[in-house]
Amino acid sequence: MEINAGDTAWVLISAALVFLMTPGLAFFYGGMVRVKSVLNMMMMSAITIAVVTILWVVVGYSLTFGGDNGGVIGNFSAAGLKGLLAPESVTGAEGHAIPTLAFVAFQLMFAIITPALISGAIADRATFRGWIVFVALWTSLVYFPVAHSVWFFDADGGGGFIGAGIKALDFAGGTAVHVNAGAAALALAIVLGRRVGWRKDPMRPHSLPLVLLGAGLLWFGWFGFNAGSALSAGSTAAVTFVNTQVATAAAVIGWLIVERIRHGKATTLGLASGAVAGLVAITPACAAVTPMGAIILGLVAGGICAFAVSLKYKLGFDDSLDVVGVHLVGGLVGSIAIGFLGSAAAPAAVDGLFYGGGAGQLGRQVLANLIVGVYSFVVAFVLAKVIDLTIGFRLKEDDELTGIDQVEHAETAYEFTSGGGMRGHSLVRAEPRPETVTDETVGKSDKEEANA
Amino acid sequence: MEINAGDTAWVLISAALVFLMTPGLAFFYGGMVRVKSVLNMMMMSAITIAVVTILWVVVGYSLTFGGDNGGVIGNFSAAGLKGLLAPESVTGAEGHAIPTLAFVAFQLMFAIITPALISGAIADRATFRGWIVFVALWTSLVYFPVAHSVWFFDADGGGGFIGAGIKALDFAGGTAVHVNAGAAALALAIVLGRRVGWRKDPMRPHSLPLVLLGAGLLWFGWFGFNAGSALSAGSTAAVTFVNTQVATAAAVIGWLIVERIRHGKATTLGLASGAVAGLVAITPACAAVTPMGAIILGLVAGGICAFAVSLKYKLGFDDSLDVVGVHLVGGLVGSIAIGFLGSAAAPAAVDGLFYGGGAGQLGRQVLANLIVGVYSFVVAFVLAKVIDLTIGFRLKEDDELTGIDQVEHAETAYEFTSGGGMRGHSLVRAEPRPETVTDETVGKSDKEEANA
Amino acid sequence: MEINAGDTAWVLISAALVFLMTPGLAFFYGGMVRVKSVLNMMMMSAITIAVVTILWVVVGYSLTFGGDNGGVIGNFSAAGLKGLLAPESVTGAEGHAIPTLAFVAFQLMFAIITPALISGAIADRATFRGWIVFVALWTSLVYFPVAHSVWFFDADGGGGFIGAGIKALDFAGGTAVHVNAGAAALALAIVLGRRVGWRKDPMRPHSLPLVLLGAGLLWFGWFGFNAGSALSAGSTAAVTFVNTQVATAAAVIGWLIVERIRHGKATTLGLASGAVAGLVAITPACAAVTPMGAIILGLVAGGICAFAVSLKYKLGFDDSLDVVGVHLVGGLVGSIAIGFLGSAAAPAAVDGLFYGGGAGQLGRQVLANLIVGVYSFVVAFVLAKVIDLTIGFRLKEDDELTGIDQVEHAETAYEFTSGGGMRGHSLVRAEPRPETVTDETVGKSDKEEANA
Repeated sequence: MEINAGDTAWVLISAALVFLMTPGLAFFYGGMVRVKSVLNMMMMSAITIAVVTILWVVVGYSLTFGGDNGGVIGNFSAAGLKGLLAPESVTGAEGHAIPTLAFVAFQLMFAIITPALISGAIADRATFRGWIVFVALWTSLVYFPVAHSVWFFDADGGGGFIGAGIKALDFAGGTAVHVNAGAAALALAIVLGRRVGWRKDPMRPHSLPLVLLGAGLLWFGWFGFNAGSALSAGSTAAVTFVNTQVATAAAVIGWLIVERIRHGKATTLGLASGAVAGLVAITPACAAVTPMGAIILGLVAGGICAFAVSLKYKLGFDDSLDVVGVHLVGGLVGSIAIGFLGSAAAPAAVDGLFYGGGAGQLGRQVLANLIVGVYSFVVAFVLAKVIDLTIGFRLKEDDELTGIDQVEHAETAYEFTSGGGMRGHSLVRAEPRPETVTDETVGKSDKEEANA
Repeated sequence: MEINAGDTAWVLISAALVFLMTPGLAFFYGGMVRVKSVLNMMMMSAITIAVVTILWVVVGYSLTFGGDNGGVIGNFSAAGLKGLLAPESVTGAEGHAIPTLAFVAFQLMFAIITPALISGAIADRATFRGWIVFVALWTSLVYFPVAHSVWFFDADGGGGFIGAGIKALDFAGGTAVHVNAGAAALALAIVLGRRVGWRKDPMRPHSLPLVLLGAGLLWFGWFGFNAGSALSAGSTAAVTFVNTQVATAAAVIGWLIVERIRHGKATTLGLASGAVAGLVAITPACAAVTPMGAIILGLVAGGICAFAVSLKYKLGFDDSLDVVGVHLVGGLVGSIAIGFLGSAAAPAAVDGLFYGGGAGQLGRQVLANLIVGVYSFVVAFVLAKVIDLTIGFRLKEDDELTGIDQVEHAETAYEFTSGGGMRGHSLVRAEPRPETVTDETVGKSDKEEANA
Repeated sequence: MEINAGDTAWVLISAALVFLMTPGLAFFYGGMVRVKSVLNMMMMSAITIAVVTILWVVVGYSLTFGGDNGGVIGNFSAAGLKGLLAPESVTGAEGHAIPTLAFVAFQLMFAIITPALISGAIADRATFRGWIVFVALWTSLVYFPVAHSVWFFDADGGGGFIGAGIKALDFAGGTAVHVNAGAAALALAIVLGRRVGWRKDPMRPHSLPLVLLGAGLLWFGWFGFNAGSALSAGSTAAVTFVNTQVATAAAVIGWLIVERIRHGKATTLGLASGAVAGLVAITPACAAVTPMGAIILGLVAGGICAFAVSLKYKLGFDDSLDVVGVHLVGGLVGSIAIGFLGSAAAPAAVDGLFYGGGAGQLGRQVLANLIVGVYSFVVAFVLAKVIDLTIGFRLKEDDELTGIDQVEHAETAYEFTSGGGMRGHSLVRAEPRPETVTDETVGKSDKEEANA
C-alpha cells in the first residue's frame, strides 16, 4: 500500500512528542522531590528510556503487536524488528498507510512512559538496581500483554481480549497506560513502605519552576500521545487534539476550585497536578466525546483527583508524588466517563448514558479497567517483594537520610557556591542592595570571608 | 472537500508549537522577576491557558470565526463548537482542506498567548482573582472582535473591517496579537501603578537560565505561530519559516549592537529580548518580505526596541518586563515595515515603498494598528479600573513586600536547603574545596550547625 | 514539480527540531560549567544562532548548495537566497518535492549547531568577541566547504568530492558535523590552553537538572536531525527515527556499564553523556544499519566514548566539556561502524564487513573522516592563533578568576537572595522545620537578621 507522507509525518512527530514526555515527567517528578533526591528521581525515568527501548526492539514490539495468542499476548515473529522495514506498512484512522517502523517508534514511546510513571510512587527510597530490574520485568510481564489485550486488532476483527473482545474503548491509554501504571504504583508504595520522616519532616517540592517545566512538556507532548494515536492526520486527530486541550483546561479549573475551597489558595502545584489529571482522564476518551463533553469530563476529573490525592494520608501509604491519586484515579474517571459522556458525534461513535445510549459501554469500561488494575497490582506487588528479598529494592534508612543522589549516583544536583578558583565568594548574590556593591566592596567581603 | 493529511499534520503540530509558547512565556517572564514572585508570574500565564480555552470552546471561536456582524464580530452559530466536527473543513494557503477543528485548535493557541503576554507589564503586584477576571473580559471584549476584524474573510471577499476592509496585512498577529497585547499592557501598567521600590530596590532577573529557556521555547514555538499561519505545508510556510529565523537573528544583532554601544557589554537579557523583539516584528510581515528584507526588518526592530525599553524610565510607568517596549513597539515596527519592505516576490505579493510600491500599504498598516492599539488601550484601561475598584486588582503594599507567591499562592518557588530528615545540612554545596569533604567532615559541620 | 505537503510538513518541523537543539546544547553545556560562567557558555551557542543565520542567507547556502566548483565548494549564484522562492523545489528520499526554502531552513540549522558544538571545549575562558569572529570564519572556511563536499550532489551523479567522489556515507552529519566540530574543538582547546586551576579546583557541573534538560532537548531534536535528513516522511525517515532511538538507548547502557565498572556508580552526567555519544554515533549510520545493528553500534559507541573522555587528562588538554571525547570520537565510531555494520536491508543498501560486504566502504569512511578531521583541525588551529594574537581569544587570568559572566556580560546567572524591598529575608527557605514557621516566627527571624 502506498505510504501517505502526511500521516507518516504526523506519526513520526507524534512519536517524538511522546518521547519528550518522559524527560518532561523526569522534570515534573524531579521538581517535586527534595534537593537530595532530584537526580535519582530523574534517573529513574531516564534509565527506563534506555531499558525499555532495547527490550522493545528485541522482543517487546513482537510480543505486543506481532500476531495473537489467545487474545492476551503476541508472538516472537517480529523479534528484533525482523522483516518490518519497507515496504511493510500499517493503516491509520483515515485508512491510509504509514511505514510499520513509524508505528513501532510511536508505540515504543508508550511502552517507555508507562513504567516511568510508576517511579513517582517510590521517590527517595528505591535502589537503582532494584528499579532497573523491576522496569524490565514489569514491562515484559504486564505492559506487553496489557497493551496487546487492549490495542491489538486482527484484520478479521479479532485481537486482544479487552479491545476486540470486551470492546472496551481506550483510544490512547487510559487503561493500558494510566490505570496500569497507577495500580502498579500503589503496589510499590505499599511494598517499599513509607519514607523516613513521612508526614513529619517537610517534603516540599524543591523547585516548582522545574515542576511547571515538566507539566508544560507533558502537556505539549500529550498532543502527540492522544492525537497521534489516530495514526493519521485527519479529522480524528483534530477532534482528539481539541478534546485534549479542553479537558485539561477544565481539569485545571476543577482542581483549583477544590483547592481554593479546601485550602484557601490556588497553588502552582495544584495547577500542574490538575493539568496532568485532565490529560490522564481525557486520554481514553478523547475520540469518544465532543468538546463540550470534554469540558465536563475535565471538570469532574480535576475535582475528583484533587480529593483523591488526600487518600494516601487517610489510608497511610506513601505514594510520594501522587501516581495513584492522579493516574489510577484519573485513568478510571476518564475510562468510565465514556459510559456516560460518549457521543455518537465523536469519532468513536458510541452514545453513553447521558446521550441516550444504554449502560453497556459503561459496564465494558468498568470491567476492562478492573481486570487491568488488578492484574497490574498483583504482578507488581509480587515482583517488588521478590526484588526486595533478593537484590534489595528499599534503600537502607541511613542512606535515605544521607540522600539517594549521593548514595546511588555519587552526585548532587546543584553546586551553586563552589566556584573553583573563584576567590571563594558566592556567585549567587546575597547582597540586599546591589547598587552599592562595587568591585571594591566585593573584594572586601572576600577578604572578610577569607579571614573568618 | 478532501482533507490533505500533510497540511493537517502541519497545522496540528503548529498548534502544539504555539501552545508551547505560553509555557515558554511563563519561563521567560518567570526568570525575569525576583525570587519572591516567580510562581505568580508563571501562574498568570498558566491560568490564562485554562480560562481562555474554555471561553474559546463555549463562545470565543464562534464570535471570532463564526460568520460576520458588521465586520467587527462573529455570531453564536458555532457556540460550543457545534457542527464543526467532520466533515467540516477550512482551506489553507495552498488551496487544500484541513479539518475545521484543526483550525479551531490552532487559533485557540493565539487567543491564549495574547492576554498572557500582557501579564509581564504588571509583575509582582496584581491580585490573582483580578487577573483572572481581566483575562476573561479583555479576551471577550478585545481579542475576539480584533481577531475577527483582522482575520475573518468571507468566501465572497468580505469579512473583518481591518483585514478585508482596510486591507491591512497581518499574516500571523503583529496587529491582532502584539500591538493588541502591548497597548493593553501599557494601560494596566498605568492603572496598577509602580511596584514598591521601583527604581530604588534591585529587581534583577532571579534566573537568567530560565529566561533563556523561555526565549528558546518561544523561538521554537514561533515557527508554528508564523509558518503555521499558512494553514498549509507549502511554499508560503517555507518562506515564512525562513523569514522568521532570519529576522530574529538580525534583531539579536541589532539589539546587542545598541546595548554594546550604550552600556559596553552584550548581555544575556539583551540577547533574549532582541530575539523576542525580532520574532514580534517579523510576525505580521513574514509573508510579505524576502529573506534579505527580513534581515533589514530584524536589524531595525532589534535596534529600535533596545531603545524603546528605556522609555518607561523617562515616562515613569513600570512596564515591569517590557511588554510595551518589545510587543507594542516591535509589533508596530513590523507592521509598518511592510509598507517599506513589502516585496511582490514574497507570498503576500505587495510591493512596499522601497520596492517601487506606493505609500498606500503603509497608510493601511498605520491605520490598522492605530485603531487596534487605541481600542485595546481604552478597553483595558477601563476594565482594569473597574476591577480594581470592585474586587481589587492591585495587591496591598504589605503583601507585595512579603512576596506575591507567599500571599497569593502560599508557596515559594525553591526549597534548596530544607532537606527533611537530612541531618540539617544544605545539599547545595558550599564547600570551597569539595575534595576534602568526607562524610566525617560533613558530620562535623552538621554538629557545629546544630550547636550554633 | 508539485510540492508534497506531507514531506514539507516533515522537513519544516524537523528544521524546528534541529533549531531547538542549539538552545538544548546551551543548557547541556551551561549546566556543566561552574555558576560563574553559565551565561557565557549559553551566549556562545546563542550568538552562533544569530551570526550563522545571517551568514547562511547572505552567502552560506549558496556556497554550500549552489552549484559546484571542483567538488569542494559552491558558488554565489544563490547569494541572498535570490531566486529560491516558489516555484523552486528540491527532492527528498521518496522522490517527492519540497520547497527549496524548506531545505534552506533545514540545512541552516545544521550550519548553526556545528560551530556551537565547538564551544564546549573552551568553557570559561574565551573572549566573546574572539568567539564571534571564530564562528564567522570557521563556518565560512570549514563548514561550508565540508558540508558541500559531503552533501552536494549534482543531478548527473557528480557533486562534492567526499559524498559523490569518495562515496563515503554520512546520512545526517557524523563527518560533516561531529568529526568536523570535534576536530576544531581539539584545536581550540590546545590553542587557548587550560583553565586556571584545571585538575586542582573543583569544576563540577553547577546544575545537573539543567544538563538533563539540555540532553532531553538534544535527544528530542535529534529525531529531526536524523529522520528529517530523509527530506521526506516515508520509510527512510521511519528507519532512521527508530535507529536513532535504539542506538542512543544502547549507548546510555554502554556508557553506564563502563562507568559502573570503573567508578562504582551510574551517574546522571554519565547517562546524559552516553545519550549524546549515542546520538552522535548513529548520525552518519542511521540509514545504513538495521535496528539490531543500531543496538551494537550504540553499545560500542557508548563504551568507547566513556573511555575517551579520560584521554584529556592523560594528554593534558582541557577539552572542558568533552567535545573531543564525545563528538570527535563518537562521530568517528559511527562513521567507521558503517563499514562493519552496514546492511543491505537498510535504506542506504550497503553491506558492511559483518554482513558479507568487502572492506571498501570501511576504507571510504576512514578516508573521508581523516580528510575532514585534519582539515578542520588545521584551519581551526590557525584561526584561533591569529584571533588570539590580534583581538585576543583567551581571557585574562584575572578575569577568568572573577568569572566570565561578570566580565564579559556584566551579569550573574542567578539572584536567589536579592529580594528587593523584601525586608531582607531569603525567599529560598532554609528553615529545617517549616511546620513551625508561622508568619510570626518569620517576622521574628527577620528582625533578628536585621539586628544581626
